[in-house]
Amino acid sequence: MEPRGTHIICELSGCDTRVLTDLGRVRSIMVAAAKEANAEVLKVAFHRFDPHGVSGVVVIAESHLSIHTWPESGYAAVDFYTCGDHTDPWRACEYAAEKLGAQSMLTTEVKRGIASTNGQYTHVVHEHAGRSAAKRSA
Amino acid sequence: MEPRGTHIICELSGCDTRVLTDLGRVRSIMVAAAKEANAEVLKVAFHRFDPHGVSGVVVIAESHLSIHTWPESGYAAVDFYTCGDHTDPWRACEYAAEKLGAQSMLTTEVKRGIASTNGQYTHVVHEHAGRSAAKRSA
Repeated sequence: MEPRGTHIICELSGCDTRVLTDLGRVRSIMVAAAKEANAEVLKVAFHRFDPHGVSGVVVIAESHLSIHTWPESGYAAVDFYTCGDHTDPWRACEYAAEKLGAQSMLTTEVKRGIASTNGQYTHVVHEHAGRSAAKRSA
Repeated sequence: MEPRGTHIICELSGCDTRVLTDLGRVRSIMVAAAKEANAEVLKVAFHRFDPHGVSGVVVIAESHLSIHTWPESGYAAVDFYTCGDHTDPWRACEYAAEKLGAQSMLTTEVKRGIASTNGQYTHVVHEHAGRSAAKRSA
């Protein structure tokens, strides 16, 4: 796998409160989202907070997906980071947003692991970019 | 914990190849980095790739830290995302960069979970910002 990857940083608002507080459902959604992206799931680690809120990560062969939920605010902070031409993190993002019942989504796309001529690795930020905007400027 | 958090997206170049390929050392460094940030470690999930490379995540009570390494390139893609005034993800970032033997570091800081007046959550990107730059513009 090449270092080059796409990392979507996503804020989801107006989500379904019942889903955001349900560890089993959040975990299922994130694992399914990884599969939607055509990624290979390696490890899954989730935690439910008292009184509410879920944090969790899906480690994939192509990087990771993560989620942190604040049910009381209908808010989830979600990351979709995949490497490899065979994966599409936007599919994971769109899938998770739908399954979490998000009414709005704000995303920034970061192209990571870009080799510079001096041997250093850098990244390129497409701020507040949707799938189409990021593709246009790629 | 408030939704508001600081997420550092970090590319580390020129790292120690022997460290990047050693799951035990990478995991120890990331767990120690979480503690440097004054975060509470909840879950740890790491995987070693064949022939080399490590991916892993530390789920903390205040969000997560993640790492993906490409030893053959001396490169690591690392994230430090913490919520709460008691944490400082920059301490984790600086600690990990040093322990991984990074010769250079590129970071972008994202302030996440910022509530808008319309009830939607947004984020603010400080592109290619170091600790001091991000603090100045905060």
